[in-house]
Amino acid sequence: MTDKKKIYKPRPISGFPEWLPEVRRIEQQWFDHIRKIFESYGFCSIETPSVEELNVINIKGDNGSDVDKEVYVLERLHKEEGDEEAGKAEGLTGITKKEARLALHFDQTVPLARYVAQHFNDLIFPFKRYQIQRVWRGERPQAGRFREFYQCDIDVINIDSLPLHFDAEMPAIIWEILSSLPGMENEKLQIRISNRKILMGYCLGLGISKIPEVMRIMDKLEKIGNDETYYALGKLDLTPGQAKMLIDMASLKTSDPSKIQDFIYKIEGIDGHGYVFDGLRDLKFVLEQLSHLPEGAVVADLSIVRGLDYYTGTVYETVFTEDPGYGSICSGGRYNDLTSNYINKRLPGVGISIGFSRLFDRIRREGKLPVKGSSPADILVVMPSEEQRSVANETGLILRRRGFNVEVFHGGKLKRQLAYAEKKGIPYVWFPPFENGNPHEVKNMETGKQIPTTTNDWNKDE
Amino acid sequence: MTDKKKIYKPRPISGFPEWLPEVRRIEQQWFDHIRKIFESYGFCSIETPSVEELNVINIKGDNGSDVDKEVYVLERLHKEEGDEEAGKAEGLTGITKKEARLALHFDQTVPLARYVAQHFNDLIFPFKRYQIQRVWRGERPQAGRFREFYQCDIDVINIDSLPLHFDAEMPAIIWEILSSLPGMENEKLQIRISNRKILMGYCLGLGISKIPEVMRIMDKLEKIGNDETYYALGKLDLTPGQAKMLIDMASLKTSDPSKIQDFIYKIEGIDGHGYVFDGLRDLKFVLEQLSHLPEGAVVADLSIVRGLDYYTGTVYETVFTEDPGYGSICSGGRYNDLTSNYINKRLPGVGISIGFSRLFDRIRREGKLPVKGSSPADILVVMPSEEQRSVANETGLILRRRGFNVEVFHGGKLKRQLAYAEKKGIPYVWFPPFENGNPHEVKNMETGKQIPTTTNDWNKDE
Repeated sequence: MTDKKKIYKPRPISGFPEWLPEVRRIEQQWFDHIRKIFESYGFCSIETPSVEELNVINIKGDNGSDVDKEVYVLERLHKEEGDEEAGKAEGLTGITKKEARLALHFDQTVPLARYVAQHFNDLIFPFKRYQIQRVWRGERPQAGRFREFYQCDIDVINIDSLPLHFDAEMPAIIWEILSSLPGMENEKLQIRISNRKILMGYCLGLGISKIPEVMRIMDKLEKIGNDETYYALGKLDLTPGQAKMLIDMASLKTSDPSKIQDFIYKIEGIDGHGYVFDGLRDLKFVLEQLSHLPEGAVVADLSIVRGLDYYTGTVYETVFTEDPGYGSICSGGRYNDLTSNYINKRLPGVGISIGFSRLFDRIRREGKLPVKGSSPADILVVMPSEEQRSVANETGLILRRRGFNVEVFHGGKLKRQLAYAEKKGIPYVWFPPFENGNPHEVKNMETGKQIPTTTNDWNKDE
Repeated sequence: MTDKKKIYKPRPISGFPEWLPEVRRIEQQWFDHIRKIFESYGFCSIETPSVEELNVINIKGDNGSDVDKEVYVLERLHKEEGDEEAGKAEGLTGITKKEARLALHFDQTVPLARYVAQHFNDLIFPFKRYQIQRVWRGERPQAGRFREFYQCDIDVINIDSLPLHFDAEMPAIIWEILSSLPGMENEKLQIRISNRKILMGYCLGLGISKIPEVMRIMDKLEKIGNDETYYALGKLDLTPGQAKMLIDMASLKTSDPSKIQDFIYKIEGIDGHGYVFDGLRDLKFVLEQLSHLPEGAVVADLSIVRGLDYYTGTVYETVFTEDPGYGSICSGGRYNDLTSNYINKRLPGVGISIGFSRLFDRIRREGKLPVKGSSPADILVVMPSEEQRSVANETGLILRRRGFNVEVFHGGKLKRQLAYAEKKGIPYVWFPPFENGNPHEVKNMETGKQIPTTTNDWNKDE
């Protein structure tokens, strides 16, 4: 009927993951699980557009990261002359003489800051929001590097000041989530916490001026080792003594708040210890508040710095305890003025972000996802014959109304219908009466047991 | 503490909607509702990347629509020389000498066709999938026109042939969804169904060759009226008699299958009535299968054509009965060879798509969404004093474990905490004992009633 067409064989696009239905089902369970726990702590959901004005994103370019390299900008394939003038003539919001360039967001933190500034008068503070969306990084194609992926973020933002208890609530929520995701039950994870004020105070006390540069070097300590860190700090003109102080400090790792206290006494002699003291006190408080978590779940680790400049206090990273080299799968921290580019208010906050796709893909590749069937159906109602079609349809309607997910097969040999249920992992097959007067029967596909039943009385455990 | 920064006041981006938390809550309820009903009919979820190769999208450019005008392509902001060579050197999938250009998908039908072709060997047929994702249209900015919006699609695709009963299942599912979305309960909607074989047969019988062009003109009949349709058909060199036949045919609107039968008898004289007969018979069957829906929910309407060339049989549109001019909010149809650009198989299917954002935004603008508070919390646990912090935290933990969504306030005056619960629409405020030995108390914020209770026994209805 149709002309012979040229076939264009589709192929995967590097960095843009896509799952088969049975994997997608587990991905949905993960999202549901994360959402449920976020909401159980009173976080509301927001979604922002996939794009921000390039101006909004670029303002954050001063954070010293390579982010401005990684942005995807949008271009219309057939941009017409005069479009911008048309937009202007219609007096549309957001359209100036030249239409703003749009870029896909590369994280959910910049959009959050913009959202809070833009809707400031309509939000209730402390503003607790969660956000589960895709983000994009226009990196050059590399094996195993995602260019489109999901992040699951929570943040609390308040006006003027924000109690430190929120800094302790974040890891508690994350622990609850990560330790109970389907397929993650046996993973050993560790949330590592530090406070940037400690390193900042050290630098101030030691007379080091290039604090952001030092932060970025210290952030890589675990990755590059002590020698390279000495070298890099040397290139910044730190003295060997200064470098040693910093590297020694970074070696403190403990889950015992009293050890932090000991450390506080040790540094009482150095200048700038006001900051250091504040940082250590805050860190100790956060650790104490998390004492109900299992042994080893949370540690204070002064080597944790985070690469982004906007953190000003508590910082978090989360690693596989036995494979810390995989990098952090859940990170965040406290910031004082994330929104200050967009609004003239003091809006401190604290937040944490699950690197969902990297985590999910690892567990998937390790074969740990509890993948069963591809279908959400509880029951397949078979079509015994064309004459019994209305009985089969009616059966489907009643069972659906009772809350079951029910697929009605639309015809074909009985054997094929059973094979279909088997392949899709549908746990029950329902046989409406082949002749009026006969009973309904239902087959448990796992046990093979088949019993007579009725549409109003049947339940899964039978 | 921070330098004085330049403030960049953020503004909405035309065509990219964003909601406040209280509206987003209802949007989530809508998505949950749609997903639940899709799954209750056994449809599995898939998600495809936000992008497709431009080659994949452009192949469908032969469908005669203006789609190729509307595509957003991605550009990396800082594309480096040699990136493509690097990709090639690493031997990555999907990277050829020149990296393929990527475009944001403008619908979910092209991605579905590509997905089915690409994963053909891993899918189980009939393949029933739903897909709830954002799509993008790079249109020039116009008031009220979305450039990023959600679609909610279901499709069934089978190998070689697909029973007609699926054509009837689609409107039944859509009716169930649309008639029970929160805020939609009082909307009068009508699903209008036709079958393209009727118009195609007419054209063949009348010796009209420019069938796609006729389809596109007839698709606009309701919008442009009879006179302009006569004019447009005239420009295509149809005779006045041919034009009249088509326009007369399009006037058939009935929810009574027997009326369709009458119509069948009437046209028995014309040539090409094989197609016409098949189309009418299929349409009658679909209507009969939907007889359990309320009066007026579904009508056969021969003026329904749909603009896209790939439909080959049943076609659907859904309108507000009292405001059909708003256009269709849910459309779709049957297609024979959607995947034929990508795979050498015959894979017919039928599908329907809810234009989610347009629908949601209309109900929102009309003030019909049941917007309550912005918080998902059932309970706000107040913090009576710093001494009672651990009691408050413990209360939150226990109530969460019991399945409630619980926010623990982190400090501040009691009056402020109550005002916060009020503003966020949290229905219950919980008072842990201000002194040990006293009972817990809980206040119903709607009735104002406050009662003593315990964390293990309390329930919402008290």
